Amino acid sequence: MEGLDKVIHQPNRLRIMAALLALDPDERAEFTFLCDLLELTDGNLGAHLQRLQDARYVMIEKKFVGRKPRTYIWPTARGRAAFEAHVEALRRIIAGASED
Amino acid sequence: MEGLDKVIHQPNRLRIMAALLALDPDERAEFTFLCDLLELTDGNLGAHLQRLQDARYVMIEKKFVGRKPRTYIWPTARGRAAFEAHVEALRRIIAGASED
Repeated sequence: MEGLDKVIHQPNRLRIMAALLALDPDERAEFTFLCDLLELTDGNLGAHLQRLQDARYVMIEKKFVGRKPRTYIWPTARGRAAFEAHVEALRRIIAGASED
Repeated sequence: MEGLDKVIHQPNRLRIMAALLALDPDERAEFTFLCDLLELTDGNLGAHLQRLQDARYVMIEKKFVGRKPRTYIWPTARGRAAFEAHVEALRRIIAGASED
């Protein structure tokens, strides 16, 4: 995979990580906000987030706001580092294999 | 796929296209040169080139140099445009989905 991250290479997970890394460091994304932003179904977003959580790239917290369940997501330091390494690997590849 | 090109998204094909686009416009890459450069086996490189040829992203020419068969590969204008569009789509995603 030439330094590319298998988990993040998948286009929707790349988009999810990019969206999460665009948050302020103390901010969390709400599940339905991510669904709307990325135009993913609940099921699809949920499956990708599970995969990202398994890799310990994101944290997921469910809590009740009044009677409503809410799910919040934010990137871990490990996830941030993995995203940055993936993007750097992409840059190296795109810059031309002949320059490596 | 959010503007990403399915054919080019595959990491080795991304590397092959990047290597081919690093050539001068009138240059062609020799098959064994690409094998060495990208550290791919003949079979693996051959399969990816076939897929790129099917998409009309590369041209492949086999000819004899003396008694030795040689295979030359170069990118088409369509392949060049597809690579550039793919890279542009990656840039947009990486820049943060919230800015779209």
